[in-house]
Amino acid sequence: MHVSAVQQLIDEFSRLPGIGPRSAQRITFYMLKQTRPDALRLAQAILDAKDKVTFCTRCFNLAEGGECEICVDDRRDPHMICVVEEPKDVIALEKSRGFTGRYHVLQGALSPIDGIGADQLTIAALIRRIEPEAVEEVILCTNPNVEGDTTALYLARQLSEKFPKIKVSRLASGLPAGSDLEYADAVTLGYALGGRRLVES
Amino acid sequence: MHVSAVQQLIDEFSRLPGIGPRSAQRITFYMLKQTRPDALRLAQAILDAKDKVTFCTRCFNLAEGGECEICVDDRRDPHMICVVEEPKDVIALEKSRGFTGRYHVLQGALSPIDGIGADQLTIAALIRRIEPEAVEEVILCTNPNVEGDTTALYLARQLSEKFPKIKVSRLASGLPAGSDLEYADAVTLGYALGGRRLVES
Repeated sequence: MHVSAVQQLIDEFSRLPGIGPRSAQRITFYMLKQTRPDALRLAQAILDAKDKVTFCTRCFNLAEGGECEICVDDRRDPHMICVVEEPKDVIALEKSRGFTGRYHVLQGALSPIDGIGADQLTIAALIRRIEPEAVEEVILCTNPNVEGDTTALYLARQLSEKFPKIKVSRLASGLPAGSDLEYADAVTLGYALGGRRLVES
Repeated sequence: MHVSAVQQLIDEFSRLPGIGPRSAQRITFYMLKQTRPDALRLAQAILDAKDKVTFCTRCFNLAEGGECEICVDDRRDPHMICVVEEPKDVIALEKSRGFTGRYHVLQGALSPIDGIGADQLTIAALIRRIEPEAVEEVILCTNPNVEGDTTALYLARQLSEKFPKIKVSRLASGLPAGSDLEYADAVTLGYALGGRRLVES
């Protein structure tokens, strides 16, 4: 088969994360069978997303120009900032409905191996926010892995040095809800043991 | 998160076969991180495929206007036709490099439950090809399942009634190469037993 437009589409789908050549082929044939308007909706959605989506000028979350929906929302507590690595982490935390403050998206985590230092992240912008927004607590919600832990430690030191009065906390790490101790990996168990809490009776 | 252009793109990706909401989200964030030209290439590939790709006027394989690359290729044996259900089956057979004739794509298989009868397939067009193209052998390569087997049986009867001189064969079905008898499913083993061949010594 050498229909170049088809092969081109298969190749483009293969480039997406988590899509192998067989899935790409399946999706391509699915698109060819779809009606024209249905297929074009995906193309249009890509164009729209690339044209409209920017980063929030305050917290670097995704936005459509200016500040994001969370930063402009008066009902959010401005004195608490949840620091995350990526915009998708904001979505995950919003789904938990456990946080009513604002966010700050670092746009990554410290990773000397990948050449990502403090200057590549939005750390300076976070530090500039603390005083004007009268922030009282910063919750470090970077991922529980080497890069995320390093970033959290770095931020905790920077923040407590510069602003001794604010509380800096780290998201609890341990066994996920509904999991089975038997199947937990060693690192998770290590986190769970390290973060153990006294049972109040 | 209520950035509508982002949610729209996630929704569009979720609609594709084999892509759940989490993969759709992952792909969307990947696209937002890509450079603009890289992301637009996928949109363009979709537009191109929908604009350029048609069905071959002879065999109903995918083509870019008129006849497909296989039908216009002089080196292909015109006296053998391999009948398949979908254009993707042509790709699979071409990869095996085991067939040098031409194809005929039925655009589906007989399935009374889904309301697909002989008129919804390209069976009439296949029968019209036999005499002008001096076809000598038709290999039925529909899928080894209920619909594919039914379609093959129907075609075999139609073809041998109308053209008693042509050979009509069916793709061999049985244990896949490199497989393990212990793990073969019952239906496959049934096919393998039914299609057993004498060992020539």
